[in-house]
Amino acid sequence: MKALMYHGPRDIRHGSMADPGLHAPGDAIVRVSACSICGSDLHIWHGHGFSDDIGFCVGHEAVGEVVEVGRAVTRLRAGDRVMLPAAVGCGACAPCLRGQVFACENGGAACYGLSARLQGVQAEAVRVPAADMNAGRIPDGISDEAALMLTDAMATAWFGVRQADVVPGSGVAVIGLGPIGLMAVDAAWVMGAHVVYAIDPVPERRAVAAATGAIALHPDQALDTIREDTRGRKLDGVIEAVGADATVDLALRLVRARGTVSVIGVQQSRRYAFPLERAFAAGLTFRTGTCSVPEELPALIPLVRSGRLRPDRHVSHHLPLSAGAEAYRLFDAREAGTLKVVLTPD
Amino acid sequence: MKALMYHGPRDIRHGSMADPGLHAPGDAIVRVSACSICGSDLHIWHGHGFSDDIGFCVGHEAVGEVVEVGRAVTRLRAGDRVMLPAAVGCGACAPCLRGQVFACENGGAACYGLSARLQGVQAEAVRVPAADMNAGRIPDGISDEAALMLTDAMATAWFGVRQADVVPGSGVAVIGLGPIGLMAVDAAWVMGAHVVYAIDPVPERRAVAAATGAIALHPDQALDTIREDTRGRKLDGVIEAVGADATVDLALRLVRARGTVSVIGVQQSRRYAFPLERAFAAGLTFRTGTCSVPEELPALIPLVRSGRLRPDRHVSHHLPLSAGAEAYRLFDAREAGTLKVVLTPD
Amino acid sequence: MKALMYHGPRDIRHGSMADPGLHAPGDAIVRVSACSICGSDLHIWHGHGFSDDIGFCVGHEAVGEVVEVGRAVTRLRAGDRVMLPAAVGCGACAPCLRGQVFACENGGAACYGLSARLQGVQAEAVRVPAADMNAGRIPDGISDEAALMLTDAMATAWFGVRQADVVPGSGVAVIGLGPIGLMAVDAAWVMGAHVVYAIDPVPERRAVAAATGAIALHPDQALDTIREDTRGRKLDGVIEAVGADATVDLALRLVRARGTVSVIGVQQSRRYAFPLERAFAAGLTFRTGTCSVPEELPALIPLVRSGRLRPDRHVSHHLPLSAGAEAYRLFDAREAGTLKVVLTPD
Amino acid sequence: MKALMYHGPRDIRHGSMADPGLHAPGDAIVRVSACSICGSDLHIWHGHGFSDDIGFCVGHEAVGEVVEVGRAVTRLRAGDRVMLPAAVGCGACAPCLRGQVFACENGGAACYGLSARLQGVQAEAVRVPAADMNAGRIPDGISDEAALMLTDAMATAWFGVRQADVVPGSGVAVIGLGPIGLMAVDAAWVMGAHVVYAIDPVPERRAVAAATGAIALHPDQALDTIREDTRGRKLDGVIEAVGADATVDLALRLVRARGTVSVIGVQQSRRYAFPLERAFAAGLTFRTGTCSVPEELPALIPLVRSGRLRPDRHVSHHLPLSAGAEAYRLFDAREAGTLKVVLTPD
Repeated sequence: MKALMYHGPRDIRHGSMADPGLHAPGDAIVRVSACSICGSDLHIWHGHGFSDDIGFCVGHEAVGEVVEVGRAVTRLRAGDRVMLPAAVGCGACAPCLRGQVFACENGGAACYGLSARLQGVQAEAVRVPAADMNAGRIPDGISDEAALMLTDAMATAWFGVRQADVVPGSGVAVIGLGPIGLMAVDAAWVMGAHVVYAIDPVPERRAVAAATGAIALHPDQALDTIREDTRGRKLDGVIEAVGADATVDLALRLVRARGTVSVIGVQQSRRYAFPLERAFAAGLTFRTGTCSVPEELPALIPLVRSGRLRPDRHVSHHLPLSAGAEAYRLFDAREAGTLKVVLTPD
Repeated sequence: MKALMYHGPRDIRHGSMADPGLHAPGDAIVRVSACSICGSDLHIWHGHGFSDDIGFCVGHEAVGEVVEVGRAVTRLRAGDRVMLPAAVGCGACAPCLRGQVFACENGGAACYGLSARLQGVQAEAVRVPAADMNAGRIPDGISDEAALMLTDAMATAWFGVRQADVVPGSGVAVIGLGPIGLMAVDAAWVMGAHVVYAIDPVPERRAVAAATGAIALHPDQALDTIREDTRGRKLDGVIEAVGADATVDLALRLVRARGTVSVIGVQQSRRYAFPLERAFAAGLTFRTGTCSVPEELPALIPLVRSGRLRPDRHVSHHLPLSAGAEAYRLFDAREAGTLKVVLTPD
Repeated sequence: MKALMYHGPRDIRHGSMADPGLHAPGDAIVRVSACSICGSDLHIWHGHGFSDDIGFCVGHEAVGEVVEVGRAVTRLRAGDRVMLPAAVGCGACAPCLRGQVFACENGGAACYGLSARLQGVQAEAVRVPAADMNAGRIPDGISDEAALMLTDAMATAWFGVRQADVVPGSGVAVIGLGPIGLMAVDAAWVMGAHVVYAIDPVPERRAVAAATGAIALHPDQALDTIREDTRGRKLDGVIEAVGADATVDLALRLVRARGTVSVIGVQQSRRYAFPLERAFAAGLTFRTGTCSVPEELPALIPLVRSGRLRPDRHVSHHLPLSAGAEAYRLFDAREAGTLKVVLTPD
Repeated sequence: MKALMYHGPRDIRHGSMADPGLHAPGDAIVRVSACSICGSDLHIWHGHGFSDDIGFCVGHEAVGEVVEVGRAVTRLRAGDRVMLPAAVGCGACAPCLRGQVFACENGGAACYGLSARLQGVQAEAVRVPAADMNAGRIPDGISDEAALMLTDAMATAWFGVRQADVVPGSGVAVIGLGPIGLMAVDAAWVMGAHVVYAIDPVPERRAVAAATGAIALHPDQALDTIREDTRGRKLDGVIEAVGADATVDLALRLVRARGTVSVIGVQQSRRYAFPLERAFAAGLTFRTGTCSVPEELPALIPLVRSGRLRPDRHVSHHLPLSAGAEAYRLFDAREAGTLKVVLTPD
């Protein structure tokens, strides 16, 4: 089959690889009908990847159709339209049964497309382990493209805002307006924020947030403006959706005493210089982590179905899978107007 | 001064009464600039009042200006624009300091205008006991009329939805679309409901709710429609904003297993026939009670200031205080289009 | 095999019935090593049962050993020591995967031993449907008898105290000191109650509670004593573990303004005369329902393993299964000293 | 009057200073009957103080008797026995009214005895600003010495365990077994921990914790032992009660995926090397801050009154105030057996 594979820094290419097959009785094979590129895929593209492997298939956001199931699969059958949460678990331990794949007690937690261990989904087809738990039928009333956004980006955004302890009436900031940040802005509104500050250096991204009613700010203005607007009190919850020390620093400056910072950008600092004295004086809560997608779906599915959340509106480009190399370059350029890029097997 | 006074069933009249004076060092006198009629005022008007007193001033929703303060008042001064929460507390015990006036430990909890004990606010002026705690300056950016809605109706609606355990993604119903019910619809959206069913026999009231995106239903259709829409699962939270046994019954039928019913309509049943066997089988939570207004304000003030909640849009009539008798008749008729009636001292 | 079967009011007898067999690929057969009698079994014994069936096997609390599994069972194998939560679910829907069997979305929720639909466990063996989800291996460090208490009584007690919103520092009452009530007393201490009032007419039962530090009261004294001890404030949370209108009434009188009543005794009133006016004035929360046992186990297992909870100390009698008829009479007599009765297949 | 005053590093001496007087109408003067030394006082003693002032009175834990009140004080009168929470607020803003003095919106938050701005309480008398809010009558049934522990140490310990998201069934560790750490062990039991690991290099301190049922460990053993005991899962909540980078590091290693670290030791690191990559992978919550004592008292007072918490058992020494210099040296030596040191004006 055809797939996008990692061959080294800045070298992800469309090529041929072996078709996936069933390895275990709980596996299923899913023919991918659409997949998308996530900001964290750029970590791989830039070569500071999560393994030393070469030649593996990348990507972790996909929807498609079940084409084959192992004999232990009971909840899916060939022909089912499914969405594939970005990470899988063993599917059998208590946390996995609750959807908390990243708390899998059997060491089964893995994200697609980070190494050869679990091939990615930017391909014509993919093997899904423990498919009864790790693939979900696309609910009635949800489009394939909205479902694709639920496999990672929208769920991570939602998780990030929840983790910031946002409640009705909160004042909120979102730092970083890539697709996840923009969906976090949407999530903050749904959770009852009275104000959302949307912070990013790119004017076009700020404009998307501003159109929702958010107050859009360049990072350089953020601290002064927010301090003034709130008369020094600052914000209840701040979401960092970048993954850099400087934006974590900014988040810790924008939050009020006793407020919460939620860091969802992929973090690779081993010794981040945390302002502990200041955090102690202010009584802060600092949370970071990765979303276990299935855990967020019970709240998200009705909100997407009813149209209160429309994550698919953040799709900016549709390209064939064969244009994957170009798509990565495009996405990495963070050009004005490039948000979510959806790839379709040809 | 002039005031609206209760003289017996269906006999509330504009007349003269003594000007209020300071009784205690913590009192303040507030000149009323606007007051409004609440659904619970109709209980008095209908004569099944809360005391046997005659000739007392009615009403519990008002804003105005401080004109005199006792010597122990430290947080207010003459000239301050204030809003008066519908009920007062002693202002000194721990619950009162947290704004939970109905949990006052010194027996100080009282609503304005229910008896001669604490004269009402549908008057040219009113005495406010423990004024430091029981009157609040109108925050910048909030109009007098929005503040007037915060003294009871909007706060009670908000409390009612909170008490129904509504969270982002919930399915919600509001039974009874008087002003409080309509504000509860607004509150449910802000708290993240994915759907709000708005139930009332009056088409015009349903139309107001439907304009927010709610699904408006006649009570007779409600159970069948909701059962079908939800494939039998029913709703996470149901708010009863009427105060009748039949609507409490309906609420208990619309809620899902393990869901919550929140009853905020004024209840006068001493032996309501509660379906205990069914509630036990379904694992329900049933909550009822009165809002302690100041407790809700920290969340509401930023939401009203930012325009996410616009409770003043439910004001349908402005009349002079001298037209009070007519205003009560009008409000009691529950005519199409009559929602919140605001009275202004002439 | 031998089993206890219901033949009519006050007629539960030891007799022979067909051995259980696998009906579905997810079933397992468990050889019962110990089972116990629950207060709710007495509802059946008294004939106001939950069906019109005759001749079915009763009982819903058991531990034992897996002897056979269907081909779709993946998490259990013959020889496993297991505990059987009192009720089962479909084992496949999202609530079941989280352990919330009574919210099963496929209509699969059923308690053992209420009718011929799902035979009871007071027998030499039992069929367990969807066994991967509905049977759990007994964790290391937990005795069989403690595990037997976790299949219903201790879990229901724990659930009941949680549902009363008990937090560290709460004042609590438990009404009804059968085994579940006594375990609720234990649970309230573990959850941080500063005081626990234990209320029952039987002095010996009160003595068991008093030995934990609880204040033991006869129901006739309860209201006056608690009012006086708390200077009229009354209690934060009250648990009703009887299932009678009079004790629900008492619970609603013992709770403070804004407190919570949790009703876990099996309720069969269709029109309980609920004091709605008083509940409205006091702002009460009223919760009732049945425990989904697996949902409570993640908290309970470490507490039982570490010895902070010792539910097996409430076992008062060990009898052979063949003495079942006598055991029911004994338990129904509520004699001094009769608490949990454990039956062992001969 | 006589008082303990700071004259430079390791130089806190008993000497004479001016009697305190009323500065504002809300002030009260309290004659100190007992005060105690807190671990954070040692920061001052060691000279890395919180100001450059010299000659100010130190200490922030005291109980005593009101001897004089300003004319705006309404809730206290001369003769009242009071406890003085370690920090004060303006007493008028909403957070202060709720007891959250460290969120004071008027810049009024201050701890006694850190500088000349607010003189300390290790003295014969002390001025209490906004005394209606900042001094509390000692509740009936609570000894003066227990009340003294509630002014800071016990409240901070309680806050620290709450901030670690400890719930019934949690596995907990407390790092640092000074008086606050030992009280945190007590608090963790009351909040329902199933296991408490108590970690400190001093054997005698470990022995005090072990006597409560805690598992006492030297810091060097902690990680290996806890990993093994929990089969690699580690602990739900970890409380750091030291205030050093190494113990914060240890806390972050002992907590499970998705668990919470609560840092209550006084932190002075400006650039703590936070393991952000690991925290992100594990999905941690990291909380730090200072206790607002009055906020914790509603839960603590009934627990201390009922004897479920006995903070006064951690008092190891009683000395006259005049022996203050010696008391500081003694406390700083962290000798076996030195826990809480209570000083009594002569």
